[in-house]
Amino acid sequence: MEDWYGTLISSLAKANDKRIVLLVMDGLGDCDNSGKGTALQIAATPTMDGLAARGACGLSIPVATAVTPGSGPGHLGLFGYDPLIYQVGRGVLSALGLEFDLKDTDVAARLNFCTVDKKGNITDRRAGRISDEVNRRVLDKVRGKLKAPKGVEVFFETEAEHRALLVLRGENLDDAVGETDPQVTGVPPMKADRDGYASGRTAKMVADIIAQVFAILADEPQANGILARGFAKYPDWPRFPDRFQLNPAAVAGYPMYRGVARLVGIPVVAQPTTAADVCVEAARAMKDHTFVFAHFKYTDKTGEDGDLDAKVKRIEEMDAALPKLLAARPDVLIITGDHSTPPSMKAHSWHPVPVLMAAPFVRGGQAARFDEIACRGGELGTFHAKELLPLAMAHAGKLEKYGA
Amino acid sequence: MEDWYGTLISSLAKANDKRIVLLVMDGLGDCDNSGKGTALQIAATPTMDGLAARGACGLSIPVATAVTPGSGPGHLGLFGYDPLIYQVGRGVLSALGLEFDLKDTDVAARLNFCTVDKKGNITDRRAGRISDEVNRRVLDKVRGKLKAPKGVEVFFETEAEHRALLVLRGENLDDAVGETDPQVTGVPPMKADRDGYASGRTAKMVADIIAQVFAILADEPQANGILARGFAKYPDWPRFPDRFQLNPAAVAGYPMYRGVARLVGIPVVAQPTTAADVCVEAARAMKDHTFVFAHFKYTDKTGEDGDLDAKVKRIEEMDAALPKLLAARPDVLIITGDHSTPPSMKAHSWHPVPVLMAAPFVRGGQAARFDEIACRGGELGTFHAKELLPLAMAHAGKLEKYGA
Repeated sequence: MEDWYGTLISSLAKANDKRIVLLVMDGLGDCDNSGKGTALQIAATPTMDGLAARGACGLSIPVATAVTPGSGPGHLGLFGYDPLIYQVGRGVLSALGLEFDLKDTDVAARLNFCTVDKKGNITDRRAGRISDEVNRRVLDKVRGKLKAPKGVEVFFETEAEHRALLVLRGENLDDAVGETDPQVTGVPPMKADRDGYASGRTAKMVADIIAQVFAILADEPQANGILARGFAKYPDWPRFPDRFQLNPAAVAGYPMYRGVARLVGIPVVAQPTTAADVCVEAARAMKDHTFVFAHFKYTDKTGEDGDLDAKVKRIEEMDAALPKLLAARPDVLIITGDHSTPPSMKAHSWHPVPVLMAAPFVRGGQAARFDEIACRGGELGTFHAKELLPLAMAHAGKLEKYGA
Repeated sequence: MEDWYGTLISSLAKANDKRIVLLVMDGLGDCDNSGKGTALQIAATPTMDGLAARGACGLSIPVATAVTPGSGPGHLGLFGYDPLIYQVGRGVLSALGLEFDLKDTDVAARLNFCTVDKKGNITDRRAGRISDEVNRRVLDKVRGKLKAPKGVEVFFETEAEHRALLVLRGENLDDAVGETDPQVTGVPPMKADRDGYASGRTAKMVADIIAQVFAILADEPQANGILARGFAKYPDWPRFPDRFQLNPAAVAGYPMYRGVARLVGIPVVAQPTTAADVCVEAARAMKDHTFVFAHFKYTDKTGEDGDLDAKVKRIEEMDAALPKLLAARPDVLIITGDHSTPPSMKAHSWHPVPVLMAAPFVRGGQAARFDEIACRGGELGTFHAKELLPLAMAHAGKLEKYGA
């Protein structure tokens, strides 16, 4: 797919001193809870309701209709990068999630520990979902015995259960490496340097590393092998400051979101986690930055936990904290989520996400309060998340006219 | 056009035991009738209204804004196949409409009888719109005298008036055959095996068959020739069960709709026509199938007849029958049409079609009843028909998350 919209917006972008703040309440959206309404409907949010009544509201589709996004795609859309075009390799996503400081020249892959039988055939692609503890012990063993290829550093990092991260660091590495996970049991792992990848220097290194790991783990009862997939380098995407003529900063307490921000070239300036601290740090970051991404995790976490009351409480905490951010007088303030996380589903969902934009030049007055139902009737309608940052830029006078 | 959306959904599809039922009330949508409202507004539909009030409602655009669909495209969209991408050859559509049992290797074409003068120039491209009776008599004559090419069976079937179906059955046939209708009068028909088609074995056969038909019909006063177009084989599309990881069944009493279902790989398990029978058979089909397409014809037929009262009555019949379907407890029930058929127009129309989805995890409560006006404010908004099946799959937990 061609990024015609992003290219258009980029060609019109111009810098000025106006401040845009994007406050992401992770997993904000909800569906009905047994007739009680959504978390936003239940929560008492006088400040957000006031902003909604005066501002422009709508619902945003993170990726595509009916599609549930992961955190990476969810945020890329909000940053103005179509998540169907800007796809991140799994290895890089794993590195982001672990806050591993990936360099431009590194190659990363997702590892799964597996169990193989005496013939080398896979019997369990997840090694019986070993504990984090076993994962760490086994990786220590690998680190202690592995002989790295000449001129290359090899990193192994525990993620959780059977999952780990592999990173190769050195000169002239490439990601043309075959995935070794055959996706089925009863067969041996595939070769990283098989036909189609045989010419690659990195593929040969990986094949050698994997062979060593199997030898080192031979006496393990469960995690006696590894499967590697999603070999990827840091993507070569347009950088956020160049693409949008914005001087950006991220205020985010959790590794995954700091990672996604860095992925597009948004530096992290503070790592708050509570609603009050997020608002204070976002206000502070506005001094030196024309775009501030501020992330609040707990609305997602409580949704994943299936705890409606807690989600309501977290929303109310943010509403109470908002005046600290409003005091810094952002020219455009967006409050939204990267996706919905209904407590009734205990998971991310596809439901369009409520959006509130407090800005000059709105039509306004169409959403009496800030919730999924009121936003449905707001002036922004239902739109794709990738259009949100351009809308904010338009309201902030940061987009030139198209044509004379 | 690239089928990026279908490919995306297909890549996320996963099987589970949840049941999705798609109840199509053909031509359901309407426009206003002299201030009396639409047929759905006039009809007393307590069951559908209750489902609408608890469910998710919206309006669907069958093909594209302002475009009136035929029955084929209308249903393809509902089956999750963008009708602008998945185009059916006219010959195949004619075969579907006649319930002709087309094989994968057959080649079908639409025939029009025409009138030619002594020089062989066309004077009437529709042979004076001969009656069905004349059509049948003339085709009998052709069948009796035609010498089929070696190893090939040739079928002629009456459609209506001047229209007929031609099917060739044999080994290694292709559809690289020139259309012979020049679309104007005063010139002779074009050759099926002219430049650009000259190398084809099938084109030569067709040219010979057409020459024979002209000889056989030479003494006819009106239908003394034929024009052929839309040569097509059964399309090689992704099959519905593979594309969506669903085990489908069709419950449809009319040939065209059984044909469109088979076209995408949905087998027909029952052929009811009345509202009560459609509901009973759909409920029965749910036992062994995770997706049931149930078709009700009379809402379209009464619309085509311009009979508003009858359309209202047919809608009420379905509303009264619905409890027989609801008793089988579908996890997701969609009630919609394949297009609108306003009685005031006596024809299909472009108007977006009311959609009602009874499912878990809806926001709900935004459409007080089931009609075109209430659906406009429902949570699904106005969307493209091709997105409807993916939405149902999302609600049924049949789509994986996109990205990590």
